[in-house]
Amino acid sequence: MKIVIALGGNALLQKNEKQKYETLISNIKKTSNYLSRIIKENQVVITHGNGPEIGYLALQNEIAKNKIPPMPLDILGAESQGLIGYPLEEQLINSLRDHKKNVATILTQVLVSKDDPAFKNPTKFIGPFYTKSQAQKLKNKYKIKKDSNRGYRRVVSSPKPIEIIEKKTIKKLIKDTIVIAAGGGGIPVVKTNSRLKGIEAVIDKDLASACLASSIKASYLIMLTSVPYAYLNYGTKKQKPIKEISLEKIKELQFQGHFPPGSMGPKIQAAINFLEDKGKKVIITSSENLQKALEGKKGTIILR
Amino acid sequence: MKIVIALGGNALLQKNEKQKYETLISNIKKTSNYLSRIIKENQVVITHGNGPEIGYLALQNEIAKNKIPPMPLDILGAESQGLIGYPLEEQLINSLRDHKKNVATILTQVLVSKDDPAFKNPTKFIGPFYTKSQAQKLKNKYKIKKDSNRGYRRVVSSPKPIEIIEKKTIKKLIKDTIVIAAGGGGIPVVKTNSRLKGIEAVIDKDLASACLASSIKASYLIMLTSVPYAYLNYGTKKQKPIKEISLEKIKELQFQGHFPPGSMGPKIQAAINFLEDKGKKVIITSSENLQKALEGKKGTIILR
Repeated sequence: MKIVIALGGNALLQKNEKQKYETLISNIKKTSNYLSRIIKENQVVITHGNGPEIGYLALQNEIAKNKIPPMPLDILGAESQGLIGYPLEEQLINSLRDHKKNVATILTQVLVSKDDPAFKNPTKFIGPFYTKSQAQKLKNKYKIKKDSNRGYRRVVSSPKPIEIIEKKTIKKLIKDTIVIAAGGGGIPVVKTNSRLKGIEAVIDKDLASACLASSIKASYLIMLTSVPYAYLNYGTKKQKPIKEISLEKIKELQFQGHFPPGSMGPKIQAAINFLEDKGKKVIITSSENLQKALEGKKGTIILR
Repeated sequence: MKIVIALGGNALLQKNEKQKYETLISNIKKTSNYLSRIIKENQVVITHGNGPEIGYLALQNEIAKNKIPPMPLDILGAESQGLIGYPLEEQLINSLRDHKKNVATILTQVLVSKDDPAFKNPTKFIGPFYTKSQAQKLKNKYKIKKDSNRGYRRVVSSPKPIEIIEKKTIKKLIKDTIVIAAGGGGIPVVKTNSRLKGIEAVIDKDLASACLASSIKASYLIMLTSVPYAYLNYGTKKQKPIKEISLEKIKELQFQGHFPPGSMGPKIQAAINFLEDKGKKVIITSSENLQKALEGKKGTIILR
């Protein structure tokens, strides 16, 4: 069966964990172990986020800017696909070493529209926190906004993914190869006179994963995150896990405002996009619960 | 025909050019134009160096190290495959836009031996030039050596490439896809108990390209550099371009010491490796002269 698995949350870097080589590798090892059965038994494309990583790359570029001209966000997105894709691929190869399957990481560009309203209203926070006076100094260079009560941060546009540029390559490989693709939501590119050009933005990795899952005609889209379920009334006393649910019902709950933009919102939107575009099943759960979720015993399962 | 083209020298960054986004893109555009005909008419894998780029990434990591723990060289190698592979892929897609060919960039690991003597004797220069006093300060952290008369630079181990880990994927794609692979000579990995593990080193991109060319059974290996020919008595009054030459004859010249380790040496060794392993033809020339070299009118052409 064709499955797209989107790794997020604690699959790569826990909240408050610093990006360190050892931490990255040990998290990736754990995640690879959880994936080891599903990738042996299915045709799988693995996608991943890059929120913390692209922030760190941008910060390195910022700190070193007097010696080395900083690179734009699309280039940093490509760098993050190497930074994460390579150790992930290495661990998957190791866990498949007695099997006849290959693993390949495909640099992935994702088409967005120049006219996406997101370019007028950047909302995606990346990188480190600044004090008010630091923020003031950076205002000519970046768009800076207050991120809740934690300080000021750079915000970038998060346009909608329209098309996975490398989809034919991914489709061709998937029969006998575990493919790592669309890392960090993909490298954002726009088209002008049928020519591609990178653009500074960060695409939501769950929306990009849904776009990829539709374009390779996957049956399942699985989004792994730090919690075992999507919840009703999340973070309140009335919090309640969502188990099996229909597409129609989840759209109703979305309309009622159960899924805030910063956390479960994009995952639910990705689920809806995929199921409305011929997908069969969406699972939202944590890595540890993946196997149980496949057996229908854990996780939020959304059915067309 | 199956061809591996290794981009080096001025294809990406001219000597003394600073790594800047605009420079990188404009150099890549020029190079893509020179490649546009050959990639339309043949099955081509493109490899590229990363000497300046991985040096800049290492320097950014170094400068920002109090805020962000630096990543090891294998991870930086993977980052450089994104940094260079993505804009190169984008330009090639643009130049192929009226053709039915795809372009894909494959993150590439290259197997080396833990026991390679290079690990005891680092020789590969990376990154920026330092003055004598700057070099003195960095001596506890890096291995630093004098790079001809141009200043001091960091040196790292450059072990021999043994196997391209993703060769099956590359072979599968090449029929209708221009593949970018083995960037920067590939990400160096060793095998312990049949498990892969990254190691800090930089593999020579020409030797890695020869290894790749052999393993996909390419007919031609083309190495693009900043000069139109390999030369006899290079840099002396008796300097003379090498035009068409046999494998036997080039081995003789290599033995006589015509090709210094830092410049033409690895290219000639790569040529010999490839031709001794069933390759048909090697071309060494500059990007501008590629088309003429294919017609036999320019460049150093080495035949089995």
